[in-house]
Amino acid sequence: MKKVAVVGIGCTHVAEHWDKSFRDLFSEAAWNCLDDAHSDKIDALYVGNMASGSFINQENIGTLVADYAGFDNIAATKIEAACGSGGAAIVQGYSAVASGLYDMVMVSGVEKMFDVDTAKTTAILAQAADAEYEMFYGASFVGLNALLARIYMKEYNLKHEDLARFAVHCHKYSKNTKHAAFKFEITLEQAMKSSVIADPLRLLDCSAIADGSAALLLCPFDRAKEFTDTPIELAGVGHAIDSIALHDRKNILGFDATTIAAKKAYNMAKIKAEDVDVVEVHDAFTILGLLDIEDMGFCKKGEAASFIKDGNIEQDGKIPTNLSGGLKARGHPVGATGVYQAYEIVQQLRGEAGQNQVDNAEIGVTQNIGGLGSNISISVFKR
Amino acid sequence: MKKVAVVGIGCTHVAEHWDKSFRDLFSEAAWNCLDDAHSDKIDALYVGNMASGSFINQENIGTLVADYAGFDNIAATKIEAACGSGGAAIVQGYSAVASGLYDMVMVSGVEKMFDVDTAKTTAILAQAADAEYEMFYGASFVGLNALLARIYMKEYNLKHEDLARFAVHCHKYSKNTKHAAFKFEITLEQAMKSSVIADPLRLLDCSAIADGSAALLLCPFDRAKEFTDTPIELAGVGHAIDSIALHDRKNILGFDATTIAAKKAYNMAKIKAEDVDVVEVHDAFTILGLLDIEDMGFCKKGEAASFIKDGNIEQDGKIPTNLSGGLKARGHPVGATGVYQAYEIVQQLRGEAGQNQVDNAEIGVTQNIGGLGSNISISVFKR
Repeated sequence: MKKVAVVGIGCTHVAEHWDKSFRDLFSEAAWNCLDDAHSDKIDALYVGNMASGSFINQENIGTLVADYAGFDNIAATKIEAACGSGGAAIVQGYSAVASGLYDMVMVSGVEKMFDVDTAKTTAILAQAADAEYEMFYGASFVGLNALLARIYMKEYNLKHEDLARFAVHCHKYSKNTKHAAFKFEITLEQAMKSSVIADPLRLLDCSAIADGSAALLLCPFDRAKEFTDTPIELAGVGHAIDSIALHDRKNILGFDATTIAAKKAYNMAKIKAEDVDVVEVHDAFTILGLLDIEDMGFCKKGEAASFIKDGNIEQDGKIPTNLSGGLKARGHPVGATGVYQAYEIVQQLRGEAGQNQVDNAEIGVTQNIGGLGSNISISVFKR
Repeated sequence: MKKVAVVGIGCTHVAEHWDKSFRDLFSEAAWNCLDDAHSDKIDALYVGNMASGSFINQENIGTLVADYAGFDNIAATKIEAACGSGGAAIVQGYSAVASGLYDMVMVSGVEKMFDVDTAKTTAILAQAADAEYEMFYGASFVGLNALLARIYMKEYNLKHEDLARFAVHCHKYSKNTKHAAFKFEITLEQAMKSSVIADPLRLLDCSAIADGSAALLLCPFDRAKEFTDTPIELAGVGHAIDSIALHDRKNILGFDATTIAAKKAYNMAKIKAEDVDVVEVHDAFTILGLLDIEDMGFCKKGEAASFIKDGNIEQDGKIPTNLSGGLKARGHPVGATGVYQAYEIVQQLRGEAGQNQVDNAEIGVTQNIGGLGSNISISVFKR
C-alpha cells in the first residue's frame, strides 16, 4: 500500500451562492486546489455529493463538473454517503492512490442546496434516514437529533446550556475563518433564547444548509515534493456503518460507527486519540459535537459537557476542536462538508490557519457523518 | 498492486418487481453472491446506483441495504456514474482490494425504477445528460440516441435494418438467460415494424427499464481458493469521461471514452482486443451496440453493421457479444447493469453459461456507459 499525500487544497466560500451554479462552485474549488499544488493535471476525480438529483435535477455529476472544469479523459465518479459523502470520497481517493491505480487524484465535495424551497430541502435531507420507516412517519432530521439530545441529557443529568455551549464555541472561532458562512460570535444567552426548532434543540443548536465546494489533490507521498514544500500525509482512513434507523440502534448514547471508524483510522495511522493535535468533528447539531468527542476517545462517555466547559476543546486546550467554526458556523453544504473538514485540517498542519492556528499541530483528524450516525468516516492527517 | 479475484456472483431476475423493495432486491442478490462463495462476511460494500433519491426517495443507500442484509460494521458507499454506476463501482471495488485497504469487498448494483410513473422516469433518466443544456430543451435520452443513429446511418450509408439486427441478435440468446427480462426471440421484420419512438429508433431498438440487483464478491487473488475452485481474475479496469453534452463532443461517430477506457483496461490486463473471447457491451439502444464493438476495437469504424450481419458476434463467431441478451433483452436496471454484465462474463469464464456458453472462454470484457457515452468503464476478466 503506497503512502498517500495531500499536495493541494482549495475551496469556495460557504454561502448562499445565487450567482454560481453547481459546476461553477466545483470549478472554483478545483482550480484553487490545482493552483495551490502548482499543477494542472489529474488522473481521476471523486466527487462527494449527497443529492444532486433532487437539488439540481442532475446525476452523472462526476462527468458534468470534470467536463466544465476542463479535465479531459479522466475517470470521474460521484460518491454518496448522505452528509458523509465528502469523507467517503476521501476514503475512495485514498484507495485509488494507495493501490497505484492512479497517481493524481482529486477528491472534491460539492453541494448546491438553495435552488429548491426549504420544505423540499427538509424532505431531501430526510432521505439520509430511513425513508420508509422514519421519514414516512414524519421524523425529520432535526426531530431525530432532538430525541438523541433528550435521552443524552436525561442520562447524564444535563441542561440545554450544556449543548448550546458547543455552538458558542464554534462561533468564537468562525469569525477568523475566511470561508465560513457565519463570521460572528454568539453568546450563551443568545443560543439559549433562540427559537425552539425541535425541543430541546433551538435554532442555534442547528447547522445551516449552504452551497459550497472544497477539493483536495492526492498523490503518492514519494511524488509529493513535485507539487509542494509542505506535503501532508493522509495516514489513515476508517469507515463504518450502523443501522440506518435510530430505532434499530443498539446504543443511542453515542455512535458506535464513530468508535469503529476511529479505531480503524487510528490503527492505520499508528496513533492514539491522545496523539491528536487538532480535530474537525461533524456537529450538524450541538448534541452531535458532544457525542463525537466522546466517541472519538477524547474524553469519557458522559463527560463531554464538563470537558467542553473546562476549556479542553479551545485553541490552547487538550484537543482543539472545530476551530474552523464546524458545521455550525462554517456552514454545512452536506455532501461537501467532509472535504471542507480535510481542507481545514491540512491548513492547520501546514501552519496556515491564521488566527485559529494550533501551535505545532502535527496530527489532525476529521470525522464526517452520513445519516444519523449511520455512515461515518474518519481520516487521520500527519505533517 | 495486489491481484484481484471474483469469488462470488449473485443476482435477481431483471423484471418489474412489484412485490420486492429496493433493499429486498439488494439482499437477494447479495446473499446469492455470498452463498456462491460459501462465505458470510464482507469488509466493505460499493453499491452502484443511479438515482435512488428520485426513484425511491432514499439516499444513504449503502447504509440502508447493508443494514437490511445484516452486514454489521462494514464500510458502505454508493457509487454514481448514471447508467454506468455499476461499472464504476467495480473500479472502486478493484482499487479497494488492490490497495490492501479491504480484503472482502462486495460490489453491488441496484435499481428500482417502477415505483414512479413513466413520465417521471424519462425525466430522471435525462439527468444523466446535461440538465441545463440538453434536458431543459427537451432532449430526452432516446432523442439524443436517435440523433447519433441518424448521423451514423448517413455517414456509412446504412438502413434501419442494420441497427435492428443487433436487437434480433440479443433476443436470440436471451431466451436461454435465466435472469433475463425478455426470454423470447424477435424477427427482423418485427423489429423494423415496431412503433417509432424517436426516428429512426423504434420500440425494439430500445432497452427497457427494469428493477434488479446483481453482486460480485472480490478478494485478493491469493485468498481466492478459500472461497471457490474457479476464481476469475479481475485483470484490468479502465474508466474515462467525455463531454457530458453531445453538442460539445469532438467525435459523434463513436465514443472516445470507450476507446480510452478500453486501452487502459487492455493494457492493465496485458491483452489486445483480438484476445477477447466474450464481451458484454452497453446496448441501451441498438445504435450503441454498433458503436461499442467498433470503439472497443473488435471491428473497424463504420464496419459494425456488416460485421454483425456476417455472424461475427454470434456464439461461435469472432467476438461473441451480449449472449446474455444485453441491455435490450436482459433488461436495463440502470445503475445495476454494469454489475449484471460482470455476473454474465464470470459465468462464461467459469463455464456456467448453459446454452449460451462460449467454448473455452478465457478472457471476457464488460463495457458500461453512463450518460450518452460520457462516463464509460471497461473491465477485463480472466479465467
